Amino acid sequence: MVSIALFGAGRIGQVHADNLLSIPDITLSALADPVASEARESLLARSGASLREPEAIFSDPDIDAYVIASPTDTHARFLHLAARTGKPVFCEKPVSLEFAQVVETARIIQHAGSPVMLGFQRRYDPEFMQLRQSIASGEAGRAQHIVMHTRDPAPPPLAYIQSSGGLFRDQAIHDFDMTRYLLDEEIVSVSATGACLIDPAIGAAGDIDTAMITLRASSGRLVQMINARHAAFGYDQRLEVVCERAVFTIRNHPATQIVRADAQGFLTAPPVSNFITRFASAYRAEMKAFHAMIVSGVKPLATMQDGVEAQRLAEAALLSMQENRPVSVRELG
Amino acid sequence: MVSIALFGAGRIGQVHADNLLSIPDITLSALADPVASEARESLLARSGASLREPEAIFSDPDIDAYVIASPTDTHARFLHLAARTGKPVFCEKPVSLEFAQVVETARIIQHAGSPVMLGFQRRYDPEFMQLRQSIASGEAGRAQHIVMHTRDPAPPPLAYIQSSGGLFRDQAIHDFDMTRYLLDEEIVSVSATGACLIDPAIGAAGDIDTAMITLRASSGRLVQMINARHAAFGYDQRLEVVCERAVFTIRNHPATQIVRADAQGFLTAPPVSNFITRFASAYRAEMKAFHAMIVSGVKPLATMQDGVEAQRLAEAALLSMQENRPVSVRELG
Amino acid sequence: MVSIALFGAGRIGQVHADNLLSIPDITLSALADPVASEARESLLARSGASLREPEAIFSDPDIDAYVIASPTDTHARFLHLAARTGKPVFCEKPVSLEFAQVVETARIIQHAGSPVMLGFQRRYDPEFMQLRQSIASGEAGRAQHIVMHTRDPAPPPLAYIQSSGGLFRDQAIHDFDMTRYLLDEEIVSVSATGACLIDPAIGAAGDIDTAMITLRASSGRLVQMINARHAAFGYDQRLEVVCERAVFTIRNHPATQIVRADAQGFLTAPPVSNFITRFASAYRAEMKAFHAMIVSGVKPLATMQDGVEAQRLAEAALLSMQENRPVSVRELG
Amino acid sequence: MVSIALFGAGRIGQVHADNLLSIPDITLSALADPVASEARESLLARSGASLREPEAIFSDPDIDAYVIASPTDTHARFLHLAARTGKPVFCEKPVSLEFAQVVETARIIQHAGSPVMLGFQRRYDPEFMQLRQSIASGEAGRAQHIVMHTRDPAPPPLAYIQSSGGLFRDQAIHDFDMTRYLLDEEIVSVSATGACLIDPAIGAAGDIDTAMITLRASSGRLVQMINARHAAFGYDQRLEVVCERAVFTIRNHPATQIVRADAQGFLTAPPVSNFITRFASAYRAEMKAFHAMIVSGVKPLATMQDGVEAQRLAEAALLSMQENRPVSVRELG
Repeated sequence: MVSIALFGAGRIGQVHADNLLSIPDITLSALADPVASEARESLLARSGASLREPEAIFSDPDIDAYVIASPTDTHARFLHLAARTGKPVFCEKPVSLEFAQVVETARIIQHAGSPVMLGFQRRYDPEFMQLRQSIASGEAGRAQHIVMHTRDPAPPPLAYIQSSGGLFRDQAIHDFDMTRYLLDEEIVSVSATGACLIDPAIGAAGDIDTAMITLRASSGRLVQMINARHAAFGYDQRLEVVCERAVFTIRNHPATQIVRADAQGFLTAPPVSNFITRFASAYRAEMKAFHAMIVSGVKPLATMQDGVEAQRLAEAALLSMQENRPVSVRELG
Repeated sequence: MVSIALFGAGRIGQVHADNLLSIPDITLSALADPVASEARESLLARSGASLREPEAIFSDPDIDAYVIASPTDTHARFLHLAARTGKPVFCEKPVSLEFAQVVETARIIQHAGSPVMLGFQRRYDPEFMQLRQSIASGEAGRAQHIVMHTRDPAPPPLAYIQSSGGLFRDQAIHDFDMTRYLLDEEIVSVSATGACLIDPAIGAAGDIDTAMITLRASSGRLVQMINARHAAFGYDQRLEVVCERAVFTIRNHPATQIVRADAQGFLTAPPVSNFITRFASAYRAEMKAFHAMIVSGVKPLATMQDGVEAQRLAEAALLSMQENRPVSVRELG
Repeated sequence: MVSIALFGAGRIGQVHADNLLSIPDITLSALADPVASEARESLLARSGASLREPEAIFSDPDIDAYVIASPTDTHARFLHLAARTGKPVFCEKPVSLEFAQVVETARIIQHAGSPVMLGFQRRYDPEFMQLRQSIASGEAGRAQHIVMHTRDPAPPPLAYIQSSGGLFRDQAIHDFDMTRYLLDEEIVSVSATGACLIDPAIGAAGDIDTAMITLRASSGRLVQMINARHAAFGYDQRLEVVCERAVFTIRNHPATQIVRADAQGFLTAPPVSNFITRFASAYRAEMKAFHAMIVSGVKPLATMQDGVEAQRLAEAALLSMQENRPVSVRELG
Repeated sequence: MVSIALFGAGRIGQVHADNLLSIPDITLSALADPVASEARESLLARSGASLREPEAIFSDPDIDAYVIASPTDTHARFLHLAARTGKPVFCEKPVSLEFAQVVETARIIQHAGSPVMLGFQRRYDPEFMQLRQSIASGEAGRAQHIVMHTRDPAPPPLAYIQSSGGLFRDQAIHDFDMTRYLLDEEIVSVSATGACLIDPAIGAAGDIDTAMITLRASSGRLVQMINARHAAFGYDQRLEVVCERAVFTIRNHPATQIVRADAQGFLTAPPVSNFITRFASAYRAEMKAFHAMIVSGVKPLATMQDGVEAQRLAEAALLSMQENRPVSVRELG
């Protein structure tokens, strides 16, 4: 049995916990979460884990691996502590809202040689995996450009917005990562336009709620991202990849297959409600892959370096918007 | 130039007239319609045709062909008169509501050797033609069974119902014909169940408004028809053909490609409003084919005999419903 | 904790076991299955259940309820044994292939007063439940007719066909049940047409592989069923309910939301592969409902009587096909 | 009868001619086209027009209006000649590939007071018209951002590319215009990224084949354009408008409603083949509107000034790409 410690019993921590519990070979033995809550107690009850302090967890030789799903501002510290043990770590993104700290943490991890999987769950989504494979196979010729739509069902609470690092670092980060995952090459320049069109309170908090981001890859290929904090029909996460001989699309996942037809037309269901439901199978596959990484050393699809690169693009987008000019990614170090 | 005489300036007569006028080689030289109406005057004005009596038309040597789109109870008489001239005739279905008269008229026509095209326009619909070709090619293996849906956007006026011959002879006739067209073989037995579920007035008039009809072809293959006088979303005319290695479907034609999405879901347009709009290109192709029949003797896709056979199935369905038993088509002579 | 004994470690037994294990309040304490297999051992290992004889299970006072997922020919006997205990039972359909035995077993159960839930899982499918609610609410007016398609991805093995009781009792039984569930009224007559069009071996085994079945409800409303043992694109389970002011459709569930578009057109995914995947959430809800029945006495959506009535319709369909005539359901006792 | 002279018997001239001929009140009396061709002779034959020199046409008092569909480099001269007559003119876009000449011609036309309709046919497309009306009605709240896709089924011939003025002025011009039409406000800044990813020959000719263009309207609203010279599935012209309470999409128009389903999935038809077929009804409506402008003075939906503004955006996009920076539209005069 593999003994795992979990940091954080919040929404995403609960998702990881349940996915870990469904793997027969895994025991969730410890949970670190300083805030008492019904969710925390429920997790303790159903997992049999004991509530412990982070320091105690990192010094416990019986724990085999760590899953970090605590608030962002704790990630770097926990990663540093984990690095000293050399044990496998799964860490939710982002590593830090400070890009310099992300780079520094990646350096420490690399030096320590710890195996780290980063929480870019879309890389484990069956449809994204199949799409990546289709592109890589070349069966449809070369991928020429990509268009991605990501819109939230509703803006997050203002308090979240204020501590999120902004739309580029918080929401668009997954799309930046997908770009590199699907094209399998680095982005060299970023041109971002942002606006506050949905809720003036977001603008007052110094953030934007709508962004158009154009990326150019090192081979010249283009990616267009459309990001917004709201879509009237709910969670919108689509993308299309234009290849020489085919165009691949991943559509939204409808909540049901019921159609209601009347004189107004045919009404089909809105998408599943949020990224947790949309990517449920990706989250499951992610924990299975983490297990495979622990027991067999299988390399993860998302590494610390992927986190660094995605965040570099977010920083470049922010700079591009602030200075109203295309930004070369090399400017970000 | 081919000189054509048209009988009937009603809805379908107008459709044929406009399609004839769009063929450069055709002149619409005469119109017979005893009832003065704005529609008749408009047709005379835009076609340059002169209003004449049927007898005068049939004795005019300068007229090359006839298009009969007058009320059903005149079809047989006009066909008989046309037969004497030996000139090409297009006649709307049905030839008569009396099956015996249909058979007799077919016999007369055959004896006269007149080339007659019958108004089963679906046979000229580009999608039905392509589907028939797909089936006949055998690329998907043998067709095993067919399911057809035909629902009107709304029941016709009660006066129409009363003189229509009933749902089987009036509406379902096109589906009976499609069965033979697509399977390219004869039907040997019919089992029909009818009900009045939409409007009690239809039942009071002695007709049904909903029917389920099961057909068995001579090779044993099955066809299921679903017919109704109403669908809340409008004109519903779909069909699926289950072959060994593929299932072919012809879907409804949406009126627009606009989608409106909100928290309720995705609302797409209802189908085009009725059979005239749905089969507009079929009607155009039909008149082009009639022209080809006149000038080059190209055999029509729908003959008098097709009219006889489709109506025989309607009679069999009626008998099946009345006697609450499957009916062998041979019983109908 | 509720202690449950499971009979049968086959495909459907495994599904029920996993769904039971995911309910925190339930322990799977005993398994009866006389045939050693890897699947049986795996189930024993992951559930912690002990392998026992049926008789021992039925006499064990510590077991709270029974889940019967063993071969059909054992259902009646296990139900009789369970009835003596008065404890809650879940039993897969059909109760027996012999209609008389179904009726007799239902009588025994009723006399014993045992709470029995029957395995018509579609009644617990979220989409079917929502559809039933939409119909019952009357918001779209009265339901007038229903069209159901059920086609298997491929015919079952011939050995299965031979012991299945035939297409009506085996496959169409779910559709017969859905009819009663959705219309919430009894069927009074059945007209069935069958054919062997897919695989001659099925015909040689005395069964059909394609059927068109027309049902008339006591209020006169119609249901059309289209059933086949094969669809080239995979598992096909759709239905449409025509109401006065709306038409409701439940479409197939696509396996993915990936679209591949090229000069041939847009290729979307086939449906999920079989009824086990299509109705996965229905099976989960079913076991949750069984738990609610055990602990709170919540009435099941599918009772022994529902099993009797669905099977009566299957018997009527068989008789209709054999005697080539519509059959009044009252003829079946 | 309204007597119209047509300039140009090429592809789009033929479309306009047939649409004019279908309007009963219109006579196509003169055609100017210096290049003998089968198409020109066919048009003369079916329209009854006489072949004449432009100068003779502009001095003929019996001609009521002009339709200019000749090569782009003749537009300005013909517009200048037409302006002297004060008669109504329809002119295909663009007025000129030289922006200064467009501005100058618009000034001349305005001074002359000639009524001019410009050939932005999408403004007359029933779906775009309905969409504009939906936005303007405010029923779904304010439009926040727009995403447009325009991809050609295949790159035009290289000779065309070389004289086209480039992707921005040639293809994207319609999208620039749609932006202003749908948002009903001016664009203030343009940020364009271009690349040659489809055919190196296009790059060698000094053009791009793929572009991502971000526009900001004066109120701050954003528009994202995705333009390419190729899509594997054919002509791709879609757009979505994100409003506060709804998202409107205009999808491609499938060539047929036939679906072929097999183990690979469901294959639906590619879009209609090109902009001529996609916008057939828009072209018809355009000529009807031109007729209404001639006889009743109805203002056109597309004016010379709309041509100037769309082209200004094309120039801004070109400058943005060339100088790798966002461009303020005011820079373009």
